[in-house]
Amino acid sequence: MLRLYDLAGADPSRRFSPYCWRIRLALAHKGLEVETVPWRFTDKAAIAPSGQGKVPVLVDGDRWLCESWTIASYLEDAYPDRPSLFGGGAGRALVRFHSAVADSLGGPMLPFLARDIFDRLAEADRDYFRQSREARFGTTLEAFTEGREARLAGFRAGLAPLRATLSDQPFFAGEAPNYADYALFGHFQWARAVSPFQLLAADDPVAAWRKRMLDLFGGLARRSPGY
Amino acid sequence: MLRLYDLAGADPSRRFSPYCWRIRLALAHKGLEVETVPWRFTDKAAIAPSGQGKVPVLVDGDRWLCESWTIASYLEDAYPDRPSLFGGGAGRALVRFHSAVADSLGGPMLPFLARDIFDRLAEADRDYFRQSREARFGTTLEAFTEGREARLAGFRAGLAPLRATLSDQPFFAGEAPNYADYALFGHFQWARAVSPFQLLAADDPVAAWRKRMLDLFGGLARRSPGY
Repeated sequence: MLRLYDLAGADPSRRFSPYCWRIRLALAHKGLEVETVPWRFTDKAAIAPSGQGKVPVLVDGDRWLCESWTIASYLEDAYPDRPSLFGGGAGRALVRFHSAVADSLGGPMLPFLARDIFDRLAEADRDYFRQSREARFGTTLEAFTEGREARLAGFRAGLAPLRATLSDQPFFAGEAPNYADYALFGHFQWARAVSPFQLLAADDPVAAWRKRMLDLFGGLARRSPGY
Repeated sequence: MLRLYDLAGADPSRRFSPYCWRIRLALAHKGLEVETVPWRFTDKAAIAPSGQGKVPVLVDGDRWLCESWTIASYLEDAYPDRPSLFGGGAGRALVRFHSAVADSLGGPMLPFLARDIFDRLAEADRDYFRQSREARFGTTLEAFTEGREARLAGFRAGLAPLRATLSDQPFFAGEAPNYADYALFGHFQWARAVSPFQLLAADDPVAAWRKRMLDLFGGLARRSPGY
């Protein structure tokens, strides 16, 4: 049985790491069962065998794996008889870019979410999160998140490449999703998990895709607490 | 013989449309010979049979095609025995996203290039370009381009997803390029064609990829006048 250390809030069923969600969906795509272990930022000891301090961490037998792209590539190679995460051909190389663009969504999203994340955290994580993030942002969580309504139009404009692609096809991988979709969805699931703030307009093709993603695998992502 | 209407400057050999370059390289990838016709912004009559007023316009027999993505998809379907532009499998759907991200590069690049473009234009295009662009920008070409050195770090930071991908692999499509690369390269070739301003740092993996792209097909892109 595979084991995934999965970032959780005060409510252990609230899983909110964008990178862990990529792997949750990749595992479901491969049809692999996984035991998920709720993990908090300050739980460094639990994942020490991975050689670093961030999740996702996947344990497969005696292998400890970290970094979402490394884990996805590992799953594709270790379970080649399961449905492909990358769609064959040049797929893996092409999807590397979707994953990199997804990585870049955290920066523009965080000023909408940082204060709400704090409210969802387990008590043990609160001081760590506030101190580390305020040092990084150079301001308080409250000031960093303030005035987000005024910044919304700019954020939405930045999603133009996602919107254009999804105006032509239901998923980034075409008629059915693959890791390109899981990588990009992770950050939207992160936002949904921590904040009632609506980043997407209701009539945005990106919102329609997000809904399709929430429906996948029997509503796997939808079942997790969110807004 | 295929015919491509290809945006040109005062020097008819200076081809500078990012979208035309995508198609030039796609045609070379397919091994298809093409007659390129130098075209200017004000030459609307020459491409009227395409039903609109922008290049690239590709003529294949009695078919007139426009829009770079439509043309690339047409070439893939019409010439299936030639090397694939999308790499098979889910490739075409996946590359749609690279093309959409490439489309979004024009916005951040134009404030570096607009004034230099004007200097490269044929006399007949100058008034048209200045008036239409100044109306769109809400300011003069000169004011729009001013202070570009100070904006360079921000522009380069925005290329992070390209840089991350190219740190792992030589081309967006993997070991060899495909339309994902041609789409993203078009805007860098546009910049090179019109302006001596160096958008990329010499040690940027994106610059190393740009050099590899200039080398393709016997230096097809490098032979075009540029800086």
